[in-house]
Amino acid sequence: MNLEELIEKVASGEIKLHQVEKYTGSKRLATEIRRKALEKKLGISLKNIGHYSIDPEEVIGKNIENMIGVVQIPMGVAGPLKINGEYAKGEFYIPLATTEGALVASVNRGCSALTAAGGVKTTIIDDKMTRAPLLKCPDARRAREVAQWVEENLEYLQEKAVSKVTRHGKLRGVKPYIVGNNLYLRFEFETGDAMGMNMVTIASEEIMKVIEEHFPDVKYLALSGNLCVDKKPNAMNFINGRGKTVIAEAIIPREIVEKKLKTTPELIAEVNYRKNLVGSAQAGSYGFNAHFGNIVGAIFLATGQDEAQITEGSHGITLAEVTPEGDLYISITMPSLEIGTVGGGTRVPTQREALSIMGVAGGGEPAGTNAKKFAEIVAGAVLAGELSLLAAIAAKHLAKAHKELGR
Amino acid sequence: MNLEELIEKVASGEIKLHQVEKYTGSKRLATEIRRKALEKKLGISLKNIGHYSIDPEEVIGKNIENMIGVVQIPMGVAGPLKINGEYAKGEFYIPLATTEGALVASVNRGCSALTAAGGVKTTIIDDKMTRAPLLKCPDARRAREVAQWVEENLEYLQEKAVSKVTRHGKLRGVKPYIVGNNLYLRFEFETGDAMGMNMVTIASEEIMKVIEEHFPDVKYLALSGNLCVDKKPNAMNFINGRGKTVIAEAIIPREIVEKKLKTTPELIAEVNYRKNLVGSAQAGSYGFNAHFGNIVGAIFLATGQDEAQITEGSHGITLAEVTPEGDLYISITMPSLEIGTVGGGTRVPTQREALSIMGVAGGGEPAGTNAKKFAEIVAGAVLAGELSLLAAIAAKHLAKAHKELGR
Amino acid sequence: MNLEELIEKVASGEIKLHQVEKYTGSKRLATEIRRKALEKKLGISLKNIGHYSIDPEEVIGKNIENMIGVVQIPMGVAGPLKINGEYAKGEFYIPLATTEGALVASVNRGCSALTAAGGVKTTIIDDKMTRAPLLKCPDARRAREVAQWVEENLEYLQEKAVSKVTRHGKLRGVKPYIVGNNLYLRFEFETGDAMGMNMVTIASEEIMKVIEEHFPDVKYLALSGNLCVDKKPNAMNFINGRGKTVIAEAIIPREIVEKKLKTTPELIAEVNYRKNLVGSAQAGSYGFNAHFGNIVGAIFLATGQDEAQITEGSHGITLAEVTPEGDLYISITMPSLEIGTVGGGTRVPTQREALSIMGVAGGGEPAGTNAKKFAEIVAGAVLAGELSLLAAIAAKHLAKAHKELGR
Amino acid sequence: MNLEELIEKVASGEIKLHQVEKYTGSKRLATEIRRKALEKKLGISLKNIGHYSIDPEEVIGKNIENMIGVVQIPMGVAGPLKINGEYAKGEFYIPLATTEGALVASVNRGCSALTAAGGVKTTIIDDKMTRAPLLKCPDARRAREVAQWVEENLEYLQEKAVSKVTRHGKLRGVKPYIVGNNLYLRFEFETGDAMGMNMVTIASEEIMKVIEEHFPDVKYLALSGNLCVDKKPNAMNFINGRGKTVIAEAIIPREIVEKKLKTTPELIAEVNYRKNLVGSAQAGSYGFNAHFGNIVGAIFLATGQDEAQITEGSHGITLAEVTPEGDLYISITMPSLEIGTVGGGTRVPTQREALSIMGVAGGGEPAGTNAKKFAEIVAGAVLAGELSLLAAIAAKHLAKAHKELGR
Repeated sequence: MNLEELIEKVASGEIKLHQVEKYTGSKRLATEIRRKALEKKLGISLKNIGHYSIDPEEVIGKNIENMIGVVQIPMGVAGPLKINGEYAKGEFYIPLATTEGALVASVNRGCSALTAAGGVKTTIIDDKMTRAPLLKCPDARRAREVAQWVEENLEYLQEKAVSKVTRHGKLRGVKPYIVGNNLYLRFEFETGDAMGMNMVTIASEEIMKVIEEHFPDVKYLALSGNLCVDKKPNAMNFINGRGKTVIAEAIIPREIVEKKLKTTPELIAEVNYRKNLVGSAQAGSYGFNAHFGNIVGAIFLATGQDEAQITEGSHGITLAEVTPEGDLYISITMPSLEIGTVGGGTRVPTQREALSIMGVAGGGEPAGTNAKKFAEIVAGAVLAGELSLLAAIAAKHLAKAHKELGR
Repeated sequence: MNLEELIEKVASGEIKLHQVEKYTGSKRLATEIRRKALEKKLGISLKNIGHYSIDPEEVIGKNIENMIGVVQIPMGVAGPLKINGEYAKGEFYIPLATTEGALVASVNRGCSALTAAGGVKTTIIDDKMTRAPLLKCPDARRAREVAQWVEENLEYLQEKAVSKVTRHGKLRGVKPYIVGNNLYLRFEFETGDAMGMNMVTIASEEIMKVIEEHFPDVKYLALSGNLCVDKKPNAMNFINGRGKTVIAEAIIPREIVEKKLKTTPELIAEVNYRKNLVGSAQAGSYGFNAHFGNIVGAIFLATGQDEAQITEGSHGITLAEVTPEGDLYISITMPSLEIGTVGGGTRVPTQREALSIMGVAGGGEPAGTNAKKFAEIVAGAVLAGELSLLAAIAAKHLAKAHKELGR
Repeated sequence: MNLEELIEKVASGEIKLHQVEKYTGSKRLATEIRRKALEKKLGISLKNIGHYSIDPEEVIGKNIENMIGVVQIPMGVAGPLKINGEYAKGEFYIPLATTEGALVASVNRGCSALTAAGGVKTTIIDDKMTRAPLLKCPDARRAREVAQWVEENLEYLQEKAVSKVTRHGKLRGVKPYIVGNNLYLRFEFETGDAMGMNMVTIASEEIMKVIEEHFPDVKYLALSGNLCVDKKPNAMNFINGRGKTVIAEAIIPREIVEKKLKTTPELIAEVNYRKNLVGSAQAGSYGFNAHFGNIVGAIFLATGQDEAQITEGSHGITLAEVTPEGDLYISITMPSLEIGTVGGGTRVPTQREALSIMGVAGGGEPAGTNAKKFAEIVAGAVLAGELSLLAAIAAKHLAKAHKELGR
Repeated sequence: MNLEELIEKVASGEIKLHQVEKYTGSKRLATEIRRKALEKKLGISLKNIGHYSIDPEEVIGKNIENMIGVVQIPMGVAGPLKINGEYAKGEFYIPLATTEGALVASVNRGCSALTAAGGVKTTIIDDKMTRAPLLKCPDARRAREVAQWVEENLEYLQEKAVSKVTRHGKLRGVKPYIVGNNLYLRFEFETGDAMGMNMVTIASEEIMKVIEEHFPDVKYLALSGNLCVDKKPNAMNFINGRGKTVIAEAIIPREIVEKKLKTTPELIAEVNYRKNLVGSAQAGSYGFNAHFGNIVGAIFLATGQDEAQITEGSHGITLAEVTPEGDLYISITMPSLEIGTVGGGTRVPTQREALSIMGVAGGGEPAGTNAKKFAEIVAGAVLAGELSLLAAIAAKHLAKAHKELGR
């Protein structure tokens, strides 16, 4: 079959989208054929989607199926941002992929103020990836027995199950939840520099085999019982954490707030109080912040993180206070930042290059340190974004107040 | 100054990232210089980021600042999916940009089963964009007076404020929330084919001017008081809606469930019950679903939607039930799908092409119909994703049960 | 059968607890027999439970079944509290039934400070009772049609259904929620001085008959679909209100804070910020307050309110701020205070007497004004309770700080 | 001063309510004087409030201040209910104090069906009382250090602090939460048969002294930072538990469902699914149940529990399923049932008598077993209440269906 025929048959549906590779052998060619078939069938042009430098042979099967090309999302850079972390130390540029005008400029302004103030202090509170398989038990009492056995046999499960399927994953704990006859085992793993979902999924599956053998009366029903929690807004992760739980803080001298941000510590604190705390409280929100999601989203896209996990990345709390000395204390607390520097989308060339801008492409030495460094940089960038937006709101208010006083 | 000198000065920080355009005149050249400066300073290669077909002259200022290139995210296509909507009628291909392997294949499988079953029925329940400015009042009683005045003067505000700054935006309602001395006015607008955040932001700002004039004792503190709610997980949108509130449903004959999905309606219903309902309940989640975020995320990226709004896109509920006839009823309810077909990232060429695959690029006739059609397609795709994942979990369980029975 | 025999047969289970009235005719005697039967069977004394002045003939059937006597809960009084409301104007004593030591004293102290500061300003934001019947529909589109019909036919429903079963209840609105094929119609009623649950239950039942006639393909499944929401913690009422939505505020001059409460406005504001706002945020709470539940609970018990509705009474937000003049602004916002002065437990003599202490026993003139006055008094008392507890925490902190400075 | 003068001066406000004891010596007399002063001042009669058998000398100071008498709340009894627990074994009568008509009858009916089905199986999953003091730290990193020290020094804290102030309280764990510069230490204690709030409050206060000595740069700001969480609806307790986490389950043979409850397992399961799961999901509720609060409330009042904790008692999930054999599986899961059999209101005579009806008055042998037994009985009663209400809804639906079929 020649190319034109192939395109024709794909366009007509005779050959299905996912079958094209069988006819071409080449993944790159299959990509072209699918795109051309769509163009033909729909009478449209997809030429920009067809413009890419990444290699279909590398990504099809690993990162994508039925590939037709790429989406190009503009990438900008903010910084430098000085970070005084435990892993990230020094000044960093932050790659941001977005189509929301003014976002990069805003983060950039925040970076400038923070760096002038001596930088951001970052602290990782916790670091774990979780999976919570679901088991249907004869009754709650049996569920409690299973839970207890699992809690007492973590080392055994590490040895018999986890270590068989992953070198990097380490089972570090479990928290069981029982609802009637349902048992949800929220396993916690260390996953090195990987975000870790794949790793903990495979490991949990293996653990389930062991549990099923020990407890034949218990039915393993789903690898995720939605208490992990992955890709859904939820109180579980907001309270108990998932991925990196990280805090970024800074004290901005009053002078810098006034000169660089054109407002006062008092006004920033007031806006944060009435908007991010009181407003979010009344909204029943898990996001007591101005726009974590914007910064998290733009970094996630630039660096090949899982875009659906922007959801949990938008959980968290911003605090802004006037210190006894009259300066501004500002912090952001992110309970569930799920990121990695190896695996998944981080392998795709543009994404890997974006990671390299921050010096965090690939695995760290020792394992885990690159992802932690990355988490500290993200937290710093989020702090920059929050500071900049809060200051902009406060500055407007100040300007207006001045104008009114000037009347 | 020649190029090399410019790159040198940007690398050294003498010229700031956002100042480059002043020296080059050309945005494209500025993009190249910034990228090369980073490469030089950091000793890295960003050549893939530098490979793009979109025009920096078009996107810088509108969609991005400090541009250095693009991120290329692989795009695949799922479908065709038959949709029996009120706006979307017929078979559609769905563009998905992601780096999560197996996602496109999974949605594709769901599309196949749904189409074989006669397609998806979609229903838009509500359609509005909201902004909730924050006003500090002397006390709650005064806040109540202001709120009442606003409720009684919507047409006046439309005429005096909204219509002055937008042709497409229409103020359709307001819901006031009062917490102590704080008044949050959650304005609801119709925004045509645009997602509408910019439009309602400008319109709300204009409304605030009118209110400040009428109520000089009231302080307008922030354009968003976090009850909008934008880009944060929250009960407000989950309950009261934002953007499109849309439902997709299908009845899958038992035969198709068994043949195509290798499981039974009973098992799919059970998995949905224990995982998406009971599990999510115990997690304090606003996402009673398996993975809305995955499908929403991949479509958002492909089509230039705001990635931070994936958060609200992951709110919602999946139901799966066995009908009296023994078939499978499945539905997804999305309370807050915030999307558009004009403005923002939808202008970027690859994104616009992706929209054209679904026949929804640009404005509809009449205004709003393209965005509604798009919403129905997204809902259909999300249903496909949920069906496919639930079936996969259930099939595994079934397979295991068979094996056990076979012993 | 003589008394001894009757007691014997009840003790042995031959006669069931609820059958005793059939043998005695007298409800009072049945109460005695049941109690004595339990004493005999269990070998215990219930003499205090048997000590009461309320009349079993009056409460059995209306308020209780299988009566054996009463629980005596100690009642104290706090006040006077000056209230500058729209319904409650003047000084009030507040009856509180509780077994938690120090609670009455604490509220009393708050009343004293508030009254010294000129009193509490109270504002009722909204007043409605809701019921949300559940209808199973063929699909979401049909649910939308039903919802629309209901929204457009409120007056018809008032006339054909509501007015037939209640004189006081008035259907004022409806908010439909659709999840897949489920329709929840959250009806809003005015209920005069009654809390109103019985009234709206009967009225909703009657409305359902009309709907079932108009829409024979729709199945009315439950009178409450749990979106009312009654007696469960929930975001719906917290955001959208139920019963009285009421705010109480006061400005306490710095001098009073220092002299009477032994602390400073700054410290009270800080404690409220870190505990009631930040702490409750991290807890995923709908109670951004210190202890609404304590005061609400004690008043509910004293006055015959529904004790299970203490749950929604504990929803709400406390704010504490330092004014520009250096005084303390404090407010409490209660979104869902479900109370009445007629019906239910308010008829029981001790409860009715407790209402009379506040001058709100029975119906108001016009209807509804007594319940509103009562709501303002409750809100004032809750403010007193919050102020007192926050001040106690802050005072301790201040004392310690002084001590440390004294070293 | 003679009595009349005293009453006059209290009525006029010359002598404050809380000062009366100073003039009388006798608490009982003070109670009478306060009541008469109110009667005189307000021109009302409080004679029923003045009718009581409990002794003011015993309760004033411990349970109440400014006492004027008691509220009499009707008490009924439901049962017998057969419970197959680990602590409660056999048939029990359940005392319920309420003014809500039909409640006792409804629970009674549930007890009858459950007992006929062989009884309720109860399982206690966890048992702890928590307090979460709030510390303001220099920054998050210091907060992490403090948290780590505390986690590593639990035995030291037990010895140096806890054991000094309580014999029964045992510090069993801590979970730290850090938000910016705020550290909340959620301590978990075993508290024997007491609900334990007083005990853990005193113990936590003592722990704070030790921490302040070790970390002089840390400011102890409040004994509760609202992450305990006490008396407020919240995700923390719903997910992580507080007090007793307890599950009650039963399988009701189809025959009993049909004969006794006049409905079918299928209909009960459907009502539970659409109302308690889907409806509560859409409401953003922590109460996926029909009316836990009613049963919990009535038992709490009868037995002297803290009425404000009805809030957390209304958290939880009801499941109803059709078993493969066609019978009904029903369960209730209560994450945060905060109860005790000693201390607080349990000492008041009527309340103590109510506890004695269940055989759980006073301390258990060994300590803790009485409270656990009580928790199992409460859970059983809650299950009875849920079953009865769900069945009533389903029966109505069935009756209607029958009528329609009969047409």
